[in-house]
Amino acid sequence: MCKTITSKITLVGAGPGDPELITLKGVRALQTADVVLYDALIDKRLLDHAPKTALKLYVGKRANQHYRSQESIQQLMIYYAKTHGHVVRLKGGDPFVFGRGHEEMVVAKQHDIPVNIVPGITSAIAVPELQAVPVTRRGVSESFWVMTATTRKGKLSEDVALAARSTATVVILMGIKKLPSIVDIFQKAGKKDTPIMIVQSGSTVEEKRVLGTIDTILKTIKSQPIGTPGIIVVGEVVNLHPDYVEKEAIEEMEHTLALVST
Amino acid sequence: MCKTITSKITLVGAGPGDPELITLKGVRALQTADVVLYDALIDKRLLDHAPKTALKLYVGKRANQHYRSQESIQQLMIYYAKTHGHVVRLKGGDPFVFGRGHEEMVVAKQHDIPVNIVPGITSAIAVPELQAVPVTRRGVSESFWVMTATTRKGKLSEDVALAARSTATVVILMGIKKLPSIVDIFQKAGKKDTPIMIVQSGSTVEEKRVLGTIDTILKTIKSQPIGTPGIIVVGEVVNLHPDYVEKEAIEEMEHTLALVST
Repeated sequence: MCKTITSKITLVGAGPGDPELITLKGVRALQTADVVLYDALIDKRLLDHAPKTALKLYVGKRANQHYRSQESIQQLMIYYAKTHGHVVRLKGGDPFVFGRGHEEMVVAKQHDIPVNIVPGITSAIAVPELQAVPVTRRGVSESFWVMTATTRKGKLSEDVALAARSTATVVILMGIKKLPSIVDIFQKAGKKDTPIMIVQSGSTVEEKRVLGTIDTILKTIKSQPIGTPGIIVVGEVVNLHPDYVEKEAIEEMEHTLALVST
Repeated sequence: MCKTITSKITLVGAGPGDPELITLKGVRALQTADVVLYDALIDKRLLDHAPKTALKLYVGKRANQHYRSQESIQQLMIYYAKTHGHVVRLKGGDPFVFGRGHEEMVVAKQHDIPVNIVPGITSAIAVPELQAVPVTRRGVSESFWVMTATTRKGKLSEDVALAARSTATVVILMGIKKLPSIVDIFQKAGKKDTPIMIVQSGSTVEEKRVLGTIDTILKTIKSQPIGTPGIIVVGEVVNLHPDYVEKEAIEEMEHTLALVST
């Protein structure tokens, strides 16, 4: 007996963490997968959408081995497409937002393997959103700028300094360890009172969140430690967080009560 | 007989157009809807996820009636939550990206109605992505800045000028009609050769796309007219579009053939 192999690769964005934040299209790709290559931070329940017979391989990267690892992931992807058929490359967030999905797409094309892309919900927008903080808000912020703190050379991205001088809501991924430098840049741009929010493991049950201003945040995270993976949001929209809004409402109520009682 | 009403509002992002680019969580919200209030640009097939008995109301806005309309949408949302139960507010893209979802959330809270938010795939990222153009790419662009061309006062956003001077991939929503002004700003920032892509009705069967540079795009769209709703992407990542990459590959091949034949 001989089975014809139809090679195909689908790059699927799994979303920010919550397994229900994958798209229908992503689920349908998984349902026809022969092999699933999945990253770190992928909720294992997503693998249940794939057939029981499908091969499910963890290909998460280890720190300091990025370059080698990306190459070997791509080799595996091509190998399995040629030998097994439909490979779903399941990636956190959106495959084209700091996800190296474009590189994987190019490699697939170089091997003449048809490749499809299924966008995912990016944590850059959804993680603040699930904290009820919008990246844009009429009258508060009319744009948002998304960046990674660390460039491929390991340095702090120059975009951070430009963004600190802009009017945009600034969303910084992979920036927790560089927080002191980020704070310094915003202070130098005269933004010491600008609100900042840091969210760890957004959209999952492990979600943790710290609020502050550029001037207070380093002190705050000493008493409320926060780790990776985390997202930093800087901008006036952070003031829309329910903790602030509710505090204001309570203060207003107390003020009214004080007026009534005097 | 008397049915208890449990009021609840879910703001659901429907994604960029393709009805399979809604999330599982969005589908599950629709499945328990008593009322669906949906915007323009929503694929009607999404309404099939809601029960047959659910009320499905189109609440798309008409031009020049934005303010009044937003208020009346919010009134309808509250009215139906109180009288019918679970209202799903189905919005194009992501509810918190220029979607006024935050305003709707605030109104729900003011009426003490529990409100949940289900993020959606934003067209700002997914529309270029489905053209195989990533908003970020190692070595090409390490950040992206998303804005609307038109501010609430109807003027061209000042963010466009700042963004033109930045290193970010610039994604401009609702900018087709302001294209000449946008081109002018990028020219003044010395970006005349920077590639630009305009996509109309991205991710749907009506998708149309025009490629050019800042200096050529106005001429190009005269021969290849493009309308709204459209997304403008400016930045070096546009050079990764398959049309360019394939053209380069063909030129390289022709060059090689020419060398062989001489």
